[in-house]
Amino acid sequence: MNKEMLEFIKSRRSTRKFLPKPLEREKLDAVLEAGRYAPSGGNNQSTHLIVIEDKEVLAKLAAMAEKAFAAMEVTEGMYKSMAGSVRAAKRGGYVFHYQPAALILTANQKDYSNNLVDCACVLENMMLMANALDLGSVWINQMKWLNDDPEINAYLFSLGMKESERVYGGLALGYPDTEDGLPNRTALPRTGNEVTYI
Amino acid sequence: MNKEMLEFIKSRRSTRKFLPKPLEREKLDAVLEAGRYAPSGGNNQSTHLIVIEDKEVLAKLAAMAEKAFAAMEVTEGMYKSMAGSVRAAKRGGYVFHYQPAALILTANQKDYSNNLVDCACVLENMMLMANALDLGSVWINQMKWLNDDPEINAYLFSLGMKESERVYGGLALGYPDTEDGLPNRTALPRTGNEVTYI
Repeated sequence: MNKEMLEFIKSRRSTRKFLPKPLEREKLDAVLEAGRYAPSGGNNQSTHLIVIEDKEVLAKLAAMAEKAFAAMEVTEGMYKSMAGSVRAAKRGGYVFHYQPAALILTANQKDYSNNLVDCACVLENMMLMANALDLGSVWINQMKWLNDDPEINAYLFSLGMKESERVYGGLALGYPDTEDGLPNRTALPRTGNEVTYI
Repeated sequence: MNKEMLEFIKSRRSTRKFLPKPLEREKLDAVLEAGRYAPSGGNNQSTHLIVIEDKEVLAKLAAMAEKAFAAMEVTEGMYKSMAGSVRAAKRGGYVFHYQPAALILTANQKDYSNNLVDCACVLENMMLMANALDLGSVWINQMKWLNDDPEINAYLFSLGMKESERVYGGLALGYPDTEDGLPNRTALPRTGNEVTYI
């Protein structure tokens, strides 16, 4: 568990096309369990993993997000991926979550200052665990960008999100739609993420 | 790489006491490399890892942080860990970083909306890689809480942080000061981080 682990960590790459194949419960639960064991600020453990496999719910969320993004305008300095969502929604037919077997939303307490980073650690653990199980995954930020949309929040409350919670991240998870059925493990080269030694 | 991986992920626990023993460059670089291979928003790769092994620099940062926290007051609703730093600094002799072999600050572009979560994924990868190498590590948030302190930022600029960057997280890394020399791998039970299936 060292050189092997480094090579494994370096082999994780995002998947954005999934087979219409459900996940075995054991695999899904292993991914969720890996996420639950991420560290949290002061051991707060307040990340709430909302796991959506229901196709109607996924379709409804996609439609609500499309409506919300289509009502926005691309502004100067808008985060480029969010601007992409706005443009795609205006064109129509925009499905933000890539139709995965499961969309896992990470919610957390809205008045907890470590909410965003705690969710990020949960997501990173889940991405690594997915890779270990030959599953594909990709970070999904759209529900976070829309986490002050009253209609979407009302719908998420109806699904089990608490009034005190908001969504701070998400993960699309499923079997990758590739020729060999395995995730693409050729990571993009790291030209950034520079290191300064002192 | 599946059950083994889940058990491994579940075995990570924070270390807050370190031996005064430097890290082999190969191990330090493996941890940094694992961090560099974390995903980033739109493949931005703008996390800047500032690795501080110099004892004088570590002491200077500790003194500056103590001064900054001591000048604050604990307020209603202040994040409990930050309130703990303020109280400890007022008592005196507060060293926020646990005197590790290396303090790795994760900086990122201040006007990039994914800065915080990109740094969190880098940190989570580094914590897992540290565990794989029998090293101990713990998330360090104090330099993030102080990332609008002009004196501290000026000092960090002198160390190589760019004017456009701010610190969004940190990691203390080193050999754990335990009886067997290995990190404590008995994770705290997960009673929170609940899962809702839909």
